[in-house]
Amino acid sequence: MEIKLGIIGYGGMGKWHASNAPKAGVEVTAVCDIHTERIEEAKEKGFVTYASAEELLRNENVNTVILTVPNHLHCEMAILAAKAGKHVITEKPAALSVAELDRMEDACKRAGVLFTAHQNRRWDKDMLTVKKCMEDNLIGNVFTVESTLHSGNGYMHEWHLYKKYGGGMMYDWGVHLIDQILFIMPEAKIKSLYADIKNVLHEEVDDYFKIIMKLSNGITAQIELSTYILDYQPRWLVGGDKGTVIIKDFMCNGKIYHTGQFLDKLPSNIVETVAGPTRQFAPVPPGGIIAKPLPAVESDWTDFYRNVCGVLNGTEPLKVKISEVRRVLTVMEAAVKSAETGISIALEG
Amino acid sequence: MEIKLGIIGYGGMGKWHASNAPKAGVEVTAVCDIHTERIEEAKEKGFVTYASAEELLRNENVNTVILTVPNHLHCEMAILAAKAGKHVITEKPAALSVAELDRMEDACKRAGVLFTAHQNRRWDKDMLTVKKCMEDNLIGNVFTVESTLHSGNGYMHEWHLYKKYGGGMMYDWGVHLIDQILFIMPEAKIKSLYADIKNVLHEEVDDYFKIIMKLSNGITAQIELSTYILDYQPRWLVGGDKGTVIIKDFMCNGKIYHTGQFLDKLPSNIVETVAGPTRQFAPVPPGGIIAKPLPAVESDWTDFYRNVCGVLNGTEPLKVKISEVRRVLTVMEAAVKSAETGISIALEG
Repeated sequence: MEIKLGIIGYGGMGKWHASNAPKAGVEVTAVCDIHTERIEEAKEKGFVTYASAEELLRNENVNTVILTVPNHLHCEMAILAAKAGKHVITEKPAALSVAELDRMEDACKRAGVLFTAHQNRRWDKDMLTVKKCMEDNLIGNVFTVESTLHSGNGYMHEWHLYKKYGGGMMYDWGVHLIDQILFIMPEAKIKSLYADIKNVLHEEVDDYFKIIMKLSNGITAQIELSTYILDYQPRWLVGGDKGTVIIKDFMCNGKIYHTGQFLDKLPSNIVETVAGPTRQFAPVPPGGIIAKPLPAVESDWTDFYRNVCGVLNGTEPLKVKISEVRRVLTVMEAAVKSAETGISIALEG
Repeated sequence: MEIKLGIIGYGGMGKWHASNAPKAGVEVTAVCDIHTERIEEAKEKGFVTYASAEELLRNENVNTVILTVPNHLHCEMAILAAKAGKHVITEKPAALSVAELDRMEDACKRAGVLFTAHQNRRWDKDMLTVKKCMEDNLIGNVFTVESTLHSGNGYMHEWHLYKKYGGGMMYDWGVHLIDQILFIMPEAKIKSLYADIKNVLHEEVDDYFKIIMKLSNGITAQIELSTYILDYQPRWLVGGDKGTVIIKDFMCNGKIYHTGQFLDKLPSNIVETVAGPTRQFAPVPPGGIIAKPLPAVESDWTDFYRNVCGVLNGTEPLKVKISEVRRVLTVMEAAVKSAETGISIALEG
């Protein structure tokens, strides 16, 4: 069996799937949108089009849908699609709440259709490089993992600006960044979580957040996102007791740093730095820190659709499980609660 | 009246005051240490020396002492000195606990002598530059202040390795870094605090900490210190709704970043970055971010001793007040409690 995809919503991400899903061997069977100008665009591209999801769902050639409507419509559309007997792939965030997700999963189970979410950033090379460095023990016992995403673009766009449509950066990127941390360390439980969420440039929706998670493996994970920090800090900083991993950006520029052979002990005298006396924070002697290239990882995003196809054919297990998606939403809800109350949340014992 | 200083403890910082206090017009009248080899060193430099604090305190020419003994001895020595009628300057941390500090202050009040702490990092140019940027409103409404101190030197030295002597990085640098944040924003109350403290390379004492403080002015302050992160991140990151301040190091290398004239709105289409589709985190068009030099600040550490002298002569108010020192120790105790329990602490309402 092959995926014959119906795209529900032909906005930014709908168009993206229309061009990219075929790279994974997916046939785009039909497209719908409630905006006529978008339907015209889709027609020009040669797609079979509909003016509503209901009409698209009646197309018997479509066996799977991708939900690329604004976030607040995922739940309603998933239930409609499941009732129509279509497998359901939703864009992220899968739902606005754990309660919504449960209703969606329930509908899919009853209809006997597949349900998954397009957590495409599980295929990001920067994150996979962090995972590899930790799994291959390249910097010893890790104590801190910091996942940072800064932009100078500032203001958001379209429905992302409005709360009722599921806008804001926590829904847009929080769901990716939390998912990545849990994907890197799937066995770790979150013992304690503390979050800060701010509206820096936007009155209605969040555009800054920081989430600190103390994990059962002894590692503290930090996630920070801002749409308005103009000198971007590294995408990843991972500190271990045998070195440091820095990945600067999506392109995986960065290094692994280790202690060099010359760093046996501190200088015996206090060093007068420009800012006063210190030994601990005096410059490391030349050769004391050595930088090496990051390990190479391979990744192909089209595996997402190939996996869905494999699951439908019974040849492989699902990669993006709804239990994982639920866990991410649970963390997100805890972060919102912590930010609102100023109190840390005990999450997973 | 002039300061005639007795230096109690001729280790690293004792020697530092012996060479530096005279730059502020202070006369170093006597030095004591319990180690004979240090006394020999001090004699060679021409100082009047004693083998114990008790003997030094009997020298009537000494009117003020600086306590440069290991941290666990500050309390005992301060009380001895006060009883001997000497003004007391203690190295930082002033005390190992708020309770100790109260005993020290009480002794000084009863003896009618001055009591202050050598919080020398109130004169650090990097911190004063942050303070100036905020006070002069150079980046609009500030939402985050991050104070970071990384070292590749790893292991600590001498008594800093042992808990019983008041070792560990929280006592050594936590007291500076917390003091600086409270000095930058003296009016702000700490509503909520969450901390992580780790032993990365050292079994007995802490060598990593992160403290998050949500302040009543809406700013979240973060302090992070590590003796073993090998690619040092900026000493300061300050984010505002009109720009970003980055100060990389003690030497004040860094910039202020503002939005350029070309950045009116986001690119109208989703941008395919190497790591997937995004608009918000797509590269900013050329000219979208402009960097300017940091403002210049002047600072002279010798003001510390000149201020003490001015206070003794009744011509100026004390710069490092014990009420401020107590607040820092209170925050430190809260941080330790938060780190131990995994629970945030509500501090100042």
